[in-house]
Amino acid sequence: MSLTIQQAELDKKGGFKRQSNKFDTPFGDGPNELPVEAGRYRILWSPVCPWAHRSIIVRKLLGLEDVISVGTADPIRPDIPRTDWSFTLDKDNIDPVLQIRYISEVYLNADPNYDGRPTVPAVVDITTKKVVYNDYFKLTNYLETAWIKFHKENAPNLYPEELRQDIDELNNIIFHSVNNGVYKAGFAQSQEAYEKAYDEVFKLLDELETRLENRRFLFGDYITDSDVRLYVTLARFDAAYYNGFRVNRNRLIEFPHLWAYARDLYQTPGFGDTTDFLSIKKHYHLSTIKGNTYKILPKGPDLQIWNLPHGREVLSKNPTQKFII
Amino acid sequence: MSLTIQQAELDKKGGFKRQSNKFDTPFGDGPNELPVEAGRYRILWSPVCPWAHRSIIVRKLLGLEDVISVGTADPIRPDIPRTDWSFTLDKDNIDPVLQIRYISEVYLNADPNYDGRPTVPAVVDITTKKVVYNDYFKLTNYLETAWIKFHKENAPNLYPEELRQDIDELNNIIFHSVNNGVYKAGFAQSQEAYEKAYDEVFKLLDELETRLENRRFLFGDYITDSDVRLYVTLARFDAAYYNGFRVNRNRLIEFPHLWAYARDLYQTPGFGDTTDFLSIKKHYHLSTIKGNTYKILPKGPDLQIWNLPHGREVLSKNPTQKFII
Repeated sequence: MSLTIQQAELDKKGGFKRQSNKFDTPFGDGPNELPVEAGRYRILWSPVCPWAHRSIIVRKLLGLEDVISVGTADPIRPDIPRTDWSFTLDKDNIDPVLQIRYISEVYLNADPNYDGRPTVPAVVDITTKKVVYNDYFKLTNYLETAWIKFHKENAPNLYPEELRQDIDELNNIIFHSVNNGVYKAGFAQSQEAYEKAYDEVFKLLDELETRLENRRFLFGDYITDSDVRLYVTLARFDAAYYNGFRVNRNRLIEFPHLWAYARDLYQTPGFGDTTDFLSIKKHYHLSTIKGNTYKILPKGPDLQIWNLPHGREVLSKNPTQKFII
Repeated sequence: MSLTIQQAELDKKGGFKRQSNKFDTPFGDGPNELPVEAGRYRILWSPVCPWAHRSIIVRKLLGLEDVISVGTADPIRPDIPRTDWSFTLDKDNIDPVLQIRYISEVYLNADPNYDGRPTVPAVVDITTKKVVYNDYFKLTNYLETAWIKFHKENAPNLYPEELRQDIDELNNIIFHSVNNGVYKAGFAQSQEAYEKAYDEVFKLLDELETRLENRRFLFGDYITDSDVRLYVTLARFDAAYYNGFRVNRNRLIEFPHLWAYARDLYQTPGFGDTTDFLSIKKHYHLSTIKGNTYKILPKGPDLQIWNLPHGREVLSKNPTQKFII
């Protein structure tokens, strides 16, 4: 997503109320669904954005890299004419597949009157150059289900049927209290709204710390969709949210179980290799967080420590097997 | 001190170059010295300011409370007509002894053309209502030496003659790299100046971490003037500098020896009881640090942990005796 708050995204108490997603037609084989076709779509993302990052992790875990392509936006967003995402990392500042400079272009292709924030992840139909899907909340679930025919051999089952209801429930809690909770704290325009969000963030982190004491992952021995969702916020916590969004009761590294759990995920292919700490720091500190007049990029914290041994293998029946296949 | 940077306090590389102090006549009994008299002076301070805090700690350790009075400025500074310190904590917003609203008044009494930043600590001669001394670097040393006839019975010797040269040398290093180092990081207007200051801060903290591994205090078993100077920065580190000034390689609590050392001092009368964390947080986050548009006061970090046992008694020959008397 892009992060400048408009008046429409504030409640009466100065709290941040995230805009709804506009493009949410389901993927599937039905008449009113988005056809599931290899090579047809491109996900526009930025490695800084937790909402986009989750879909890129899942894409990689499921082996969909050759099925759905990816365009990567610059961590620093342009502000002109409005907050956008740009392709300045690409040659000539143009996404090579869609031939666009800004993400807003594919939003306007889809709806010439689009006036929301142009957000990532945006799934674009390459044949029409229109955004067809931007509901980050459900995107991973579609990749896990509707796209199953394109999964790699022995792809993990991140969304097992017997756990779906529990995963959905936990995802909802994680979304409100943590994923979006840190934004509610950081974007609050009143002390009251800020403290409410702050308390919610740490209440859930405390609960998850306990939950993960004896469980390797949120639902036991295997990584699920919920772990992906929690991970993307944890990966940004000390690098950006702790200081930038003022969620500074504790750093992640002060929660022994959550911190070891986060490293366990980081050290799993699909997680750490899609986590770009430098871009994350640049995005939040130089672009999202206002008031950094001289655009000073914080030199800390030390992020090498994400590679330290996590010691959580002992919690699993089968320590080397992190996924249900 | 007050903290809005003027152009005069910047070097060519965007670095912060603190202004010199103007009022530095020595205290003593000589003809060109400030007479050492009980009841004659008032130190204007704010508990937020590390430069002022050090003199208040020493005043208390030496038992000078009835000899030199104290006026306390509000942690939040007014910006009009220029950055100042005000007495809004007092009845009718007026310091009851000097009858002033702003510290600038006693600076202008002393010099009608004074155009520097009006800083704390400011020692004011109550008889003339003029600032007579504002050299925070040497003030504690005068309290320790020139004011000795007014020390309480069994007052600690914070500045023993045989250690003075070593203390002065270390104080100088602590000043440049840490006390002022955090400001150089926080006020830098270029990435280069910021990183230079950041590196300097952590280089010295790393050295002090080693130095304090087997020594209870900087010069061994007893607290000296140098410990006071290091303490005032450590006490503000996690509450303000880590996030506000971007010195975020590590928090204080991640340095085992420095952190236990800081708690040892905090739990010593004169230190913790003059440390006002809430005011410190308000000052830095709501007043000093620019760009906090909605004046959100960070709720963290947890500062109760300053009361945890420090376990450093074992490093002393005489664990209950922290001072040379």
